Parts: sequence; C-alpha cells; structure tokens
Amino acid sequence: MIQPWKTIRSTPVGDFRIFKLRRDRRISPRTGHEHDYTIIDCPDWVNVVAITTDRQLVMVEQYRHGSETVQLEIPGGMMDPGETDPIAAGLRELREETGYEGAGARLLGKILPNPAIMGNTCYTVLVENCELKHPTAFDHGEDLATHLVPMAQIPHLLASGKIQHSLVHVALSHYQLLRQGISGEA
Amino acid sequence: MIQPWKTIRSTPVGDFRIFKLRRDRRISPRTGHEHDYTIIDCPDWVNVVAITTDRQLVMVEQYRHGSETVQLEIPGGMMDPGETDPIAAGLRELREETGYEGAGARLLGKILPNPAIMGNTCYTVLVENCELKHPTAFDHGEDLATHLVPMAQIPHLLASGKIQHSLVHVALSHYQLLRQGISGEA
Repeated sequence: MIQPWKTIRSTPVGDFRIFKLRRDRRISPRTGHEHDYTIIDCPDWVNVVAITTDRQLVMVEQYRHGSETVQLEIPGGMMDPGETDPIAAGLRELREETGYEGAGARLLGKILPNPAIMGNTCYTVLVENCELKHPTAFDHGEDLATHLVPMAQIPHLLASGKIQHSLVHVALSHYQLLRQGISGEA
Repeated sequence: MIQPWKTIRSTPVGDFRIFKLRRDRRISPRTGHEHDYTIIDCPDWVNVVAITTDRQLVMVEQYRHGSETVQLEIPGGMMDPGETDPIAAGLRELREETGYEGAGARLLGKILPNPAIMGNTCYTVLVENCELKHPTAFDHGEDLATHLVPMAQIPHLLASGKIQHSLVHVALSHYQLLRQGISGEA
C-alpha cells in the first residue's frame, strides 16, 4: 500500500503571473529520508467542448508560446480568482474566445494536468446548441481564429495527431466516451 | 491565418532540476506590441502501454508530489540527457519501475503536454508480450507498486476518472484509437 508523504515545510520560490513556484520538503513514509520537491502552482483550468446547432465542434487556432507553434485547440483557459464554478468559467471562455453561446452546459469530466509537478485540475465542460452571438475582442496578447469542424471528424483529429495539446485530447476523449455510452462502472 | 511570434530575447530564470524556467520577450505579429512569456523547459517524457502475455496492462501506483495524492498510472518518466530514442527510453522506464520486459516495442503516438507554457513532447510507447524479468530497485525518492489490470477495463478506467493523470489518459486513448482501427486519414 503506497502511503502519502508528510510535508515538513513549504517555501515560496517565485510568482510568474500564470503560475507560482514553491519548494516543499517532505519525508518518505518508506525510508524516513527527507527530499525537496519543486511544485508549479497553477489555477484550475477549463476546456470547452462546444457543439453548434448543426453539429460542428467550435475550435480555436492560436499561437502557443511554450511550443512556439500554431495549435488547433478548443476554447478554454484559466479559471479566474474567485471563480469556483467550472461551467460558468467555460461559458465565459467560450464567449470571450469565440463569441459563441449555447445551452445545457454541463461538466463532462475532469483531469489532473500533471500530478507529478502540478496540483491543479482541468475541467471539461460540454455546451450544446451553440450559436455565434457576440463579436470577439482580443487584447494585445491574444490572436485567435475560430474554426468549425464536423463532430464526425473528432476520432480522426485525435488519431492523426492534428490535436497536439494533451488537455484538448483528453477533453475530446471525455466526449467520445460519453458518446460511446461507456460508463465508469466496470 | 495565425502567424508565429518573433522572439527578441530569451533570459534564463532558474534551474529546478526536473525543469528550468526562462523568460522570452516576443513581438505580436498582429499588433507589433512586445510581451514577456515565462516558459517551463522540461525534457521530453515517455509513457509506456505495456501488455503482458495474458493481456493485462502493467500499471504503477505511486505518490505524486504535485497533487499530493496516490495515483494509478502507467510506467514512464523523463527521457535522460542524450537519450534520443523514445522507444529505448520507454523500455528503460518499464524495466526500472516494474521489472517487466517485452517485445515488439513501437511508437504509438505523441502529444504536447502543455504547448501554452511548455515546449516538450510526451511519447506513448507500446510494448507487448511483457513478462516480469527483473527485480525493481527504487531509490529513496521512489515508492511504486505494480498492478496488473485486464485490458478490457481500459475504457472504464478512463470514463470513471480512476485514471487522473492527463498524459496517462492520452496514452491509453492512443491505444484505444489503434485498437478501434481509427486511422488518422480523415
């Protein structure tokens, strides 16, 4: 049975706006030895599977500064400070990034982006019957293009490697599992 | 058409052993304004879908210091400096973490863990006909337990949320897409 580790002390390392770093000193429950771990503190994130009234997936293309490449993704982003409802956050991101609005929003799944080095959760929100309702208004740091892709293309997008962002892959996998009627009860 | 941004300068911020930070100053191709981006530099990672001769998935349970929880995952880890072949890295991680060895290893897919803030790639390696061949030898910082899970359980593991690590979800999704015969050619 794997046991949790005890944290002896936690030291802030730096604040980098979209994440903070801290260093935790912990004791191994197996050996009693102490080790330091550097943890990346991120807010929770949300990704949105937004489906139009004519059954197309609302996708966004944007330049990504980690990979230094243009990526085909779905709307999403960081939950704002004090924003506790992932569904509200997802609807906000959908509207801000694409101008689309929909109905019947619900939580489709959640995942840990990287439990080895991060503690946050990424939620997948499903929004159906989406329609373009608002103009988009990007600030200087944003540069997004909306694309509509037929839902039937999703498995091919995943298998072909056209979807390169792991959390977008997971969100679309959450949708595929729902569609295939696969329950979590084994 | 979304255009790439030009980097004016890149400044190291810190070295935290399993990742480094750097700050890049870039120009927006749309507005001409300059912005700073903090990037997390990680080595490439590899995850292994290892299947035993009796069609069970080799899984590892371990305490994760980002989420501060025990996670059910698959073998994997960082590619070593100078290690350029993800298949060799996957076979090494499989052996080190579980003592299992297999045959017919091949690359099943690859994904960007988080192109917004990281530039690295995570590879999924498939290894079949695995058998327990070696004792495991963990250092003080490691504490892993091997579990064998029937392959038929994979969709339920994904849908139930028992698999919480996004990159493990992606690796098993890569395997499911292969099994379902979904080609990347739309």
